[in-house]
Amino acid sequence: MSVIRNILNSRSSKGGNFFNSLHKLLGFRPKNIEIYERAFTHRSLNIKDELGNPINYERLEFLGDAMLGSVIASHLYQKVPEGDEGYLTKMRSKIVSRKHLNELGKDMNLIRFVKSNIPNDQFGVNIHGNIFEALIGAIYLDRGYKYCTKFIYNRVIEPYVDIETLEGRVISYKSLLIEWCQKQKKEFNYQVYEDTGKDELKHFAVKLWIDKKVISKARATSKKKAEEKASKRAYYALQNKMN
Amino acid sequence: MSVIRNILNSRSSKGGNFFNSLHKLLGFRPKNIEIYERAFTHRSLNIKDELGNPINYERLEFLGDAMLGSVIASHLYQKVPEGDEGYLTKMRSKIVSRKHLNELGKDMNLIRFVKSNIPNDQFGVNIHGNIFEALIGAIYLDRGYKYCTKFIYNRVIEPYVDIETLEGRVISYKSLLIEWCQKQKKEFNYQVYEDTGKDELKHFAVKLWIDKKVISKARATSKKKAEEKASKRAYYALQNKMN
Repeated sequence: MSVIRNILNSRSSKGGNFFNSLHKLLGFRPKNIEIYERAFTHRSLNIKDELGNPINYERLEFLGDAMLGSVIASHLYQKVPEGDEGYLTKMRSKIVSRKHLNELGKDMNLIRFVKSNIPNDQFGVNIHGNIFEALIGAIYLDRGYKYCTKFIYNRVIEPYVDIETLEGRVISYKSLLIEWCQKQKKEFNYQVYEDTGKDELKHFAVKLWIDKKVISKARATSKKKAEEKASKRAYYALQNKMN
Repeated sequence: MSVIRNILNSRSSKGGNFFNSLHKLLGFRPKNIEIYERAFTHRSLNIKDELGNPINYERLEFLGDAMLGSVIASHLYQKVPEGDEGYLTKMRSKIVSRKHLNELGKDMNLIRFVKSNIPNDQFGVNIHGNIFEALIGAIYLDRGYKYCTKFIYNRVIEPYVDIETLEGRVISYKSLLIEWCQKQKKEFNYQVYEDTGKDELKHFAVKLWIDKKVISKARATSKKKAEEKASKRAYYALQNKMN
């Protein structure tokens, strides 16, 4: 696959080369870097291997989708012993929904790695979820099911899968808070910044400003979780005022 | 889970107890026998665990379906490098189709293990595929992804998955043969019997009779494959007559 190697050799991203950024993202050393290069190669580049087969991430998407499906199924089976088959199926669909996967891929900023002939801002929104799935497929091929499972736990299940929220049993504190601010005609702002702590896993930190004062802060492995956490803290801090 | 243990203790099948039959079927020693008991417990028995959760195979079906999906996806990805995402998806659907899984479960005679309050002959046809999936789920829980993969290779991929047949590129020799016999007003009969050879994997043997003469014999890991093989042999033996 010297073709892809040559074409993609220039691949680099802010803050280091592809290998280093990938290593940081994965939390383990990638062995076969070419598989990951493929996971970020858009069909518009029109690269083919020696046999004429196209090199892009679409087949890896299929593989990653299947791996994601089985890891989430296993997690749900063990986590929710009282859920029947229909419940488990529904919960899994929510977790691996296009919307959810796009959010995941976006939070990881995977698009920085994509090589294509199309400007990044002209991709549809689904590019984020698609390359996230392709990345899962690449991990499976490179390091097997165990590493793949571990990555999915670190990147999907722990930061994003909250059964109670998925079931809609728990309200969103963020929407409660926004509603209250709007009613009270208060200015609010979620200030999100990437937290460059020592953790292997990227964290997001959020300051919630209301009327030019920081009301709460929170830190989590996704933007959404950090915002929700900060909102929950603000909610309890402001509770007397809010009700 | 002493409940299930007590209720199902009497479970036995022709030729030995549940453990031994299962051991033979799996090709490895089951560790947690209760998981397999659950895989063959029909909801009609109405058993519950200490927490009130129903004990039957339905949740395991969900798990097994997911495992099957990912193992087949991985196989296809590696086996058909020229197939795009759409092709891979289509091929996988064919392999894990209800019809195909029912055939598999039936060939393994899994229904002999089922405990229920309904007579065996009153189940719908899908019971075969459903308990086959539940068995896969049980293997995954008992021995992990590796054993599960191995079992799927031995029981699904090797005996049943022939890419060319699935693509419809190769005609069925059996239908060719039947058509010819009907046209020629010849009596034919596929005599199938279980082959009790020394192989770990169960084999089926077929004698193809045409007009009271054995025209060909074949042996394979599924009835369908053995019949197809015998038909192919007969086809070549009779070729001059057939065309």
